Amino acid sequence: MRQNYRLTISYDGTRYHGWEAKQNTDMTIQGKLEQILERMSKEPVKVIGAGRTDAGVHALAMTANVHLDTEAIRKQGTTPSEAGTALRDYLNRYLPDDICVQEAKAVSERFHSRYNAVGKTYRYTCYDAPQKPVFDRKYVYVLEHSPDLEKMRRAAGLLSGTHDFASFCGNPKMKKSTVRTIESIEIARHGARLAFTYRGDGFLYHMVRILTGTLLEIGYGTRSPESIPNILAARQRSQAGFLAPAQGLCLMEVRY
Amino acid sequence: MRQNYRLTISYDGTRYHGWEAKQNTDMTIQGKLEQILERMSKEPVKVIGAGRTDAGVHALAMTANVHLDTEAIRKQGTTPSEAGTALRDYLNRYLPDDICVQEAKAVSERFHSRYNAVGKTYRYTCYDAPQKPVFDRKYVYVLEHSPDLEKMRRAAGLLSGTHDFASFCGNPKMKKSTVRTIESIEIARHGARLAFTYRGDGFLYHMVRILTGTLLEIGYGTRSPESIPNILAARQRSQAGFLAPAQGLCLMEVRY
Repeated sequence: MRQNYRLTISYDGTRYHGWEAKQNTDMTIQGKLEQILERMSKEPVKVIGAGRTDAGVHALAMTANVHLDTEAIRKQGTTPSEAGTALRDYLNRYLPDDICVQEAKAVSERFHSRYNAVGKTYRYTCYDAPQKPVFDRKYVYVLEHSPDLEKMRRAAGLLSGTHDFASFCGNPKMKKSTVRTIESIEIARHGARLAFTYRGDGFLYHMVRILTGTLLEIGYGTRSPESIPNILAARQRSQAGFLAPAQGLCLMEVRY
Repeated sequence: MRQNYRLTISYDGTRYHGWEAKQNTDMTIQGKLEQILERMSKEPVKVIGAGRTDAGVHALAMTANVHLDTEAIRKQGTTPSEAGTALRDYLNRYLPDDICVQEAKAVSERFHSRYNAVGKTYRYTCYDAPQKPVFDRKYVYVLEHSPDLEKMRRAAGLLSGTHDFASFCGNPKMKKSTVRTIESIEIARHGARLAFTYRGDGFLYHMVRILTGTLLEIGYGTRSPESIPNILAARQRSQAGFLAPAQGLCLMEVRY
């Protein structure tokens, strides 16, 4: 019998070439998970992620689903009702230290981690003190100057809502719709840490990092908050700001 | 003219062979600081630490002091009153990402970071959920089982006060007094994280890690809290518990 499982996964993306399995490297999150599950079930396994994070991007709670032969898990010595926990523990036993399955849960055959997702939350973290951050240095982007929060918040308000975000899409050959809805962009300071929290129905390739780069340029005064409508209307990547580095970005949540 | 500076330093000890400069490696915190200051001042420099942390141990706020030729700092283009900030920024420019000078401050010629210290605070952090900690995995010790907090707190109460801690000293050839005063040992749970906070007038070689290992054995039930007085009275390392691994330990503060 086959069973569909939903996985909730945390990872430190520093060492990886992103979520998606690739032919020329085994350093992807999806690849690591599939490798272990294929060894367990002795057949090809496809782990379906809710999205693709770029190289160097982290996740607190990525979700994915996978159809598995339950016999393979039962061999790990459990009743079917405990199979989720057994699957989680099996994966964690073989995963490297920088990837962890927080939860594995038996779900309906029809659950699809990407198609059923209704929203995602990303957080981008900057740091702006002259003293470098020692302990979370791999999870923040260190700024040379302090940006103006009020200006960035004004721009964030203009970015919220349903818009064509083509100017904030890193894929110039994108054929599908570039219309997305941003529910909110919250910008909060905690000491020297500036957290940009983006909630939306979905995000284009590089979108959160380009939004952050654009907001930072507004915070530095090289663009005005009021330039946002023109950037959106242009539908050209060249009109938006720089691509903020991957290491500051973390996928916080996928909503269903 | 020479000036004495007090440095407050954070470091991630993972890559280092401890604080103290050694002949056969340049991977020590003291060594890194001296290297940079010698390049700046073109003369031998001695950085005096408040204590020595072991290989792999971290520090949120180690303190040290160093006597420097102020001309060398002034060449960095500052007035004497700004020399502390200039010294901090100069060091941070050349230090690796995992060491950071939080503050450099001109102090009296007579200030000595070790002799003048009146107390230190160390924190040892354990983690006991079945899911591994991904983002702070290098700063915690992952436990297989959950220890009993109440038993450990009872033992912590018996360890507090002024005692001969010879049983908790990792140096079998220690010639000086092994009497120390522990002001308090606080054991707090934050989710899956267990923080042991030790405040005392000073700590012997490996003392905090042996105290933690002993408390954990009590928490696991392999020793009783009431065995503490006997362990102290024995004055033998073999009577105390195991040496908890370095990576869970962090020097939080040095008091003057």
